[in-house]
Amino acid sequence: MPDRTQIAEWIALDWGTTRLRAWAMRGHTVIDKRETGDGMATIPRDGFEPALLRLVADWMGPGRTDVIACGMVGARQGWAETPYVAVPAKPPVASPHQAPAQSPHLRVRIIPGMKQENPADVMRGEETQIAGFLALNRGWDGILCLPGTHTKWVHVSAGEIVSFQTFMTGELFALLGRQSVLRHSIGETGWDDTAFSDAVDDTRSRPERLANALFALRAADLLHGQTPEAARSRLSGLLIGAELAASRPYWLGQQVAVIGETAPARPYVRALELQGVPAIFADGARMTLAGLSAARDHLKAAT
Amino acid sequence: MPDRTQIAEWIALDWGTTRLRAWAMRGHTVIDKRETGDGMATIPRDGFEPALLRLVADWMGPGRTDVIACGMVGARQGWAETPYVAVPAKPPVASPHQAPAQSPHLRVRIIPGMKQENPADVMRGEETQIAGFLALNRGWDGILCLPGTHTKWVHVSAGEIVSFQTFMTGELFALLGRQSVLRHSIGETGWDDTAFSDAVDDTRSRPERLANALFALRAADLLHGQTPEAARSRLSGLLIGAELAASRPYWLGQQVAVIGETAPARPYVRALELQGVPAIFADGARMTLAGLSAARDHLKAAT
Repeated sequence: MPDRTQIAEWIALDWGTTRLRAWAMRGHTVIDKRETGDGMATIPRDGFEPALLRLVADWMGPGRTDVIACGMVGARQGWAETPYVAVPAKPPVASPHQAPAQSPHLRVRIIPGMKQENPADVMRGEETQIAGFLALNRGWDGILCLPGTHTKWVHVSAGEIVSFQTFMTGELFALLGRQSVLRHSIGETGWDDTAFSDAVDDTRSRPERLANALFALRAADLLHGQTPEAARSRLSGLLIGAELAASRPYWLGQQVAVIGETAPARPYVRALELQGVPAIFADGARMTLAGLSAARDHLKAAT
Repeated sequence: MPDRTQIAEWIALDWGTTRLRAWAMRGHTVIDKRETGDGMATIPRDGFEPALLRLVADWMGPGRTDVIACGMVGARQGWAETPYVAVPAKPPVASPHQAPAQSPHLRVRIIPGMKQENPADVMRGEETQIAGFLALNRGWDGILCLPGTHTKWVHVSAGEIVSFQTFMTGELFALLGRQSVLRHSIGETGWDDTAFSDAVDDTRSRPERLANALFALRAADLLHGQTPEAARSRLSGLLIGAELAASRPYWLGQQVAVIGETAPARPYVRALELQGVPAIFADGARMTLAGLSAARDHLKAAT
C-alpha cells in the first residue's frame, strides 16, 4: 500500500512533443513531481493512458483522480484532439476537454490550444503558461515573449490574448548549430556577450542579411579563427536580432515579460535590454503549474 | 588490356563534399564520364588517391596522366589544402597546386578556392565554374548567381571576381523541409507557381518576416489545409525572396547569369524574372568542365 503522503488530490501534466512532466498536487501545493521522455511524438494513439499510468499510478488513491493536462497531448496526433480556440479570447483554462480513458480511476481533461486565422498561427501549451502568468499578475497588460523551439510573441490586454506570432528561432538555432555546415564552427557551450550584442545589432537593423550572415560564421572561422563560443553567441544573436526586427510592432513602447526556461530566455532578456526594453522574467514551469492550477480552480468552482 | 578508345589524355574532376564526378578527356572532348558518392566528407586524408584510382584506373595509359580537380578536395580536410586566393582576382585556374600522389602514373593538380576578407566569405569549386563561364563568354561583365547548398552571388568585371557573398538558402531549404516541424506540411515534390511568387514577394518586401512566415507554413496546413505542393513552393519562395532582398545591391540594374543544375537554378531564374531581371541560365556541369579545360590549356601553354 502506498505511503499516504504520496496520494495526490489531483495531477497536473505538461505533456509536450518530447517530454512529459507530472506534478502530484494537493490544492496549489506540489507534493511530488516526475518527468519522462514519453513525449507526444513517441507515443501511439492508444499509448497515452498506459504511459500516464506508468508514471503516476502510485500517486492515485482508491477513488477517481482528476488529471489536468496542457500541451501537444491535445494535438491531432495526441491523446484526444482538442479544437483550437480562436483569438481574441481568454486563455481557455476554464473549458478543458475530457479525454477518453479506460481506467475508472482516471478523469483526464486537456486544455485546448489557441489559433489565429490571419496571419495563420497556432499554440498549444503556451496558453496555459499565459493563464498562469495572468493568475499571478492580475490586470497585467502588455507583451509576453515565450522563447522555445517555436518562440511566441503574444499581445495580452484585459485578460485576453489579442494576437500572437510564432518564430522558428529555437528550432533554427538547433538545426543550424548541430546539422548544418556551421556545426564545424559552433561550440556546444560558452558565451561571448560582445559577439551576441553585435550580432543582434546586425540583423536587428538589416534583417535581410540573415542567410548571408549565417554563412559568414563559417567563413570567419576559416579565415579569421573566430572562436566556437563567439560563433555560438553570434548565431543566437543573428536569429534573435532578426526576430526582434519582425516583432518590433509588438514590443516597441510596451511592457514586456519573458516566460520560459532560463537558458533560452536569458538571450531574449539581454537582446530586449539592448533595445532599451527592460523585460521581466517569469519561470516557465512555474507559469505552467499556475495555469493548470487555475484550470483546477475553475473545475472545482463549477462542481 | 583496356580498349584503346578508353584512354584519357587527361582527367577532369569535380570533387565536392558529397560527390566525385570524373570526366575522361581528349583535349576539350569528353570521351567518358563517371560519378560516385566518394565525396570529400566521407574520405580520410590518405583515402583520396585510392578513391580516385578505383574510379578512373582503366582510363589511364602506361605513362603519367594529368588530373585537374576543383572543389572541396582542396579544403583543409581534403586531399591537399590549397590556400584561398583573395579577391579581387581572376579565378585561379592558371595556378593549380600539385597534390602528393604515391602512384608514378598520376599527376594531380587542384584549383584553389577564393576568399574575401571583409565581409568574410569563401568559395571552392565555384571559381572554376566562373572561369568556365568567362571562357565561353569572353568580356562578360555582370553578376553571376550560383544556386546550391550555399548559393553565391558574384560580381565579375574585366575577367576578375571583384566581390561575392554566400547565402545558406539551399541548406536551410533542406533542413527545414526534411528535419524541422515543417516536414509534416511540406511535399517532397510538386510546384505551385502562384504560391512561390507570392512568397518571393512577401520576404522580398519584408525580409524580417522570414522566421515568422516559416512557422505560418505549419499553421496554414493545420488551419487552412494548405497543400504540400503549395507549402514546398512557398518555403522556396520565402527563402529566395529574403535572399533577393539582401543581394539587391548585386543584381539591381545589372546583367545576371544563373549557373547551376536545373532544379535549384529554375526558382532563382523565376524569382529574378519577377523582379524584372531577365537572367540567362548556364548549366553548372558544363561550366565546371569548361573551367577545368581552361586550367588544362594554361598548363599545356606553360610547358
